[in-house]
Amino acid sequence: MKSQKFKKLSNRIDAARGISKSDLVLKNVKYLDVFSCQWVESDLAIYDGIVVGVDRGYKAKREIDLKGKHIVPGFIDAHVHIESSLLTPMHFEEAVLSQGTTTAICDPHEIANVMGVEGIRYFLKQAESLDLDLRVMLSSCVPATNLETNGAGTISSNKLLPLMNHPKALGLAEMMNVPGVLFKDKSTLSKILDFETNPIDGHCPLLSGKDLSAYAMTGISSCHESSEYIEAKEKLLKGISVWIREGSVAKDLEALSPLLNLATSMQIGFCTDDRNPLDIAREGHINYLIKKAIEYGVSPEVAYRSASLSVARHYGLNKKGAIAPGFSADLVFLNDPLSCSIESVLTSGKFVKELDSKKTKNIKFKNSVFAKKPELKDLEGPSGRVHVIGIIAGKIITDHVVLNHDHPSVSKLSVLERHGHGRKPANGYVTGFGNHLKGAIASSVGHDSHNLIVVGKKTKDMQVALSYLMKSGGGFCVVQDGNVIASLSLPFGGLMSQSDAKVIEKELVGLHKASQSIGCEVEEPFLQLAFLSLPVIPKLKLTDKGLVDVDQFKIIDVRAS
Amino acid sequence: MKSQKFKKLSNRIDAARGISKSDLVLKNVKYLDVFSCQWVESDLAIYDGIVVGVDRGYKAKREIDLKGKHIVPGFIDAHVHIESSLLTPMHFEEAVLSQGTTTAICDPHEIANVMGVEGIRYFLKQAESLDLDLRVMLSSCVPATNLETNGAGTISSNKLLPLMNHPKALGLAEMMNVPGVLFKDKSTLSKILDFETNPIDGHCPLLSGKDLSAYAMTGISSCHESSEYIEAKEKLLKGISVWIREGSVAKDLEALSPLLNLATSMQIGFCTDDRNPLDIAREGHINYLIKKAIEYGVSPEVAYRSASLSVARHYGLNKKGAIAPGFSADLVFLNDPLSCSIESVLTSGKFVKELDSKKTKNIKFKNSVFAKKPELKDLEGPSGRVHVIGIIAGKIITDHVVLNHDHPSVSKLSVLERHGHGRKPANGYVTGFGNHLKGAIASSVGHDSHNLIVVGKKTKDMQVALSYLMKSGGGFCVVQDGNVIASLSLPFGGLMSQSDAKVIEKELVGLHKASQSIGCEVEEPFLQLAFLSLPVIPKLKLTDKGLVDVDQFKIIDVRAS
Repeated sequence: MKSQKFKKLSNRIDAARGISKSDLVLKNVKYLDVFSCQWVESDLAIYDGIVVGVDRGYKAKREIDLKGKHIVPGFIDAHVHIESSLLTPMHFEEAVLSQGTTTAICDPHEIANVMGVEGIRYFLKQAESLDLDLRVMLSSCVPATNLETNGAGTISSNKLLPLMNHPKALGLAEMMNVPGVLFKDKSTLSKILDFETNPIDGHCPLLSGKDLSAYAMTGISSCHESSEYIEAKEKLLKGISVWIREGSVAKDLEALSPLLNLATSMQIGFCTDDRNPLDIAREGHINYLIKKAIEYGVSPEVAYRSASLSVARHYGLNKKGAIAPGFSADLVFLNDPLSCSIESVLTSGKFVKELDSKKTKNIKFKNSVFAKKPELKDLEGPSGRVHVIGIIAGKIITDHVVLNHDHPSVSKLSVLERHGHGRKPANGYVTGFGNHLKGAIASSVGHDSHNLIVVGKKTKDMQVALSYLMKSGGGFCVVQDGNVIASLSLPFGGLMSQSDAKVIEKELVGLHKASQSIGCEVEEPFLQLAFLSLPVIPKLKLTDKGLVDVDQFKIIDVRAS
Repeated sequence: MKSQKFKKLSNRIDAARGISKSDLVLKNVKYLDVFSCQWVESDLAIYDGIVVGVDRGYKAKREIDLKGKHIVPGFIDAHVHIESSLLTPMHFEEAVLSQGTTTAICDPHEIANVMGVEGIRYFLKQAESLDLDLRVMLSSCVPATNLETNGAGTISSNKLLPLMNHPKALGLAEMMNVPGVLFKDKSTLSKILDFETNPIDGHCPLLSGKDLSAYAMTGISSCHESSEYIEAKEKLLKGISVWIREGSVAKDLEALSPLLNLATSMQIGFCTDDRNPLDIAREGHINYLIKKAIEYGVSPEVAYRSASLSVARHYGLNKKGAIAPGFSADLVFLNDPLSCSIESVLTSGKFVKELDSKKTKNIKFKNSVFAKKPELKDLEGPSGRVHVIGIIAGKIITDHVVLNHDHPSVSKLSVLERHGHGRKPANGYVTGFGNHLKGAIASSVGHDSHNLIVVGKKTKDMQVALSYLMKSGGGFCVVQDGNVIASLSLPFGGLMSQSDAKVIEKELVGLHKASQSIGCEVEEPFLQLAFLSLPVIPKLKLTDKGLVDVDQFKIIDVRAS
């Protein structure tokens, strides 16, 4: 072991000194030195997966003259739930590597809520064989709250700690239980103490003042939930790194870009959190965030630094995030640095377009959707003045409004527990899906417990939609007049598909068209729906246990008093 | 243990939330947010040694209205050999805490060369009881080279690794053996591999090009030896953090300050390396470097960040180097941020001026100077054309000149092994101490093996000086006409005094006067002398084994061919 390491290091030294040949030399590049935020004209020598030299005059088996092309370090997604791409890690890698994302810090808490620690182990295991450098933060809040029912039960520290032995495990994932921290819940603080020498990610939307100080004081050191400039600025000031998120629903880039400059850039990174495969395919991944940040006025050099070195340093990935000797040869060749238009990508010294696409093992999925088909009357909410969830397009935060249940803008919303407890659905109301919605839209992706969630006008359509998801093992569907008119199957935990991004993209397009055809006014109804059951995001949510007033952090009556 | 930690964290949360009283509230401060490099007007709440809140409105047992005073985070010395202050850690802390240095990353390789691992253990042990946060990098190069004889023999990895269990041990100290790295010396690479998950400090003066790439590639991540702008810039570019040094001899601040700006500041820090007690007392410590950097045009906010957060982050001291919730309450109150004029200092929440000065344990020293008194003829070098070390005032690099041995500018220089091998002195020549030097100047501080070193015109005076050091257990002395006319006793390893900085200052003033009185033209002859035996710094050095051509890295004949 030691002698192997010795030999590896010795060979690298010889390559770096130019005594032996490198594997690849990129001649005449203009690469970004992220330590100084300056472009440097030189050659790059790559050997054994790393950059060994940034000087002129190296020899290699393969030499490419890049004629002044701009090269930047591979991008790092600072916080992502891969499950939200509906892709397995293998297909996720396929979708993002070519877009320049060579490292992703993931939190597999969707699958962990469904399958428990086995779900986290699955991601760690997958990470071993990927060309994407996938790092796993261990899900801290499973279940997210006690206001919902998940499949895994509670994952405590003693189940997580053994996973830290895995080389791809980094620390403790987003601590969403803000009240648990502030009110000194024993198991919450215990988890923080157990991970005190590792990075601990935060999740504290709109937290401020002394409560934010208390939260930061515990050692939680990042947050990707800032949606307002002033909010993010206070977090920075309190030592919390800000991951600017541009997901498919939550879009914070425009608001937060003004905070990103040369002074702050080492404490700011980019993340996607929850981004659907359509957006990844059409807009892009971290490359899209960089492009938009530059459009919003961020200096390109600063944006590229935040997308690489800043996040690497935060997570202690010492040999990631820069183009320098000893650093992983994760490189993005740009046609144009301003628009972040990518020509090709190198991951650990290999061209992504030349990667072997051999990893096509079939995974066996067991149906994880165990629910009792509800009667029509089980899907009826109360009538009269009711508390209604007001969705805000492009935000995961919701409004809390009071309306009559039969107001034209109001639709029915039900969440059905699907982890085998045989409960009846919880029923509530939502506004924002459109005044002319007919039929129903349903999903087995419902953060974070992933019960079945359905929005609709008629209970019959809602019942059909739920039944369909039960049979198919989960996914998305659109129902009109009692018939499923579009669907996507997500048999792996009710969260992920076995197909690749292209197939899913096609099916999603069909689903979007079908949604529109039944009058849905929300552009991305499935992701929007998926967050309506997440009771750690203000203000009003519906879980399988009932309607949650997030500010009060309790179940309330749907009837307005 | 866990329940104690839980209680501690709970109490801190309550203090941070303002539910319970803090220990101290500093009202109306203007503190530096080093994450954004901006001044913030607020109050600071301090509890249990840490900053718990940076918001207004906290209550405490003790509240101080600071009326807008500027406060910055305590300074971190990124690399220091405390032995060069001639002070024990206890007296070093006394000298620097009040100057704002609240954390020091030390490498005890002077005492380690004399006493071996026991010397390192002594520093670790001292660190446990200091109010200064003393962190210890484990000395990597003992002896510095095989071209000299030390007292400890070779300290290998297997002796160092057990020390890493100590909470104050940080990583591997400066890897001075550059040829060992480049030529793949087995024990050198083995040491690097053994510490690959910890910070490894570098030491690579004037290294550049592919060799610097190879050195950086191994994972060595800092260097404090840059003396030129272009040199430091290349190191930065290659991922090596630059510690700007302003020691008593080596002064790099003026040359390197132009490199320090908002873009580079997170990869640049300040260090003193070797700074004598006179300079610490008269000019200052890191506070002096900050002041000078600002004078040289560095923005104050950037300078303060480099003196705190940048170094803390580099060494993984996550809760050090900033004024934010959870961070150690190491604070410097400034009268004037531009001149870094200090009003008072807080270390871990305690005012330095209110610290108990109880730590006055006497340490028993054994005489560590074991040498055989040389005969007069043993101190005679060869005559005729000779290789002469040319000292450069204020630099530890030397010139290499060839002159006649009796040229008026040339003095005799001898190094006498003093670790009990009973060797005869090695003799050579030096220029730069003055054309009218009479008598002799001697020291038991002679980097890094700390043999006895003496410069003089007459062998008789040199013999007297050496004899005196043998008897006194080491130190400095000046001899004129066969009599010791000034001296300082350094009985602890021949390196450190038992006295405090004031006493030493007085004795050093006497020594400097005496040196001048015998015609010495070098302002600080003892530190200059101490580096003439260090064969890892170009170009020509004298060790107990003979004259070393550092570029060739071998012993050469004193006679010029």
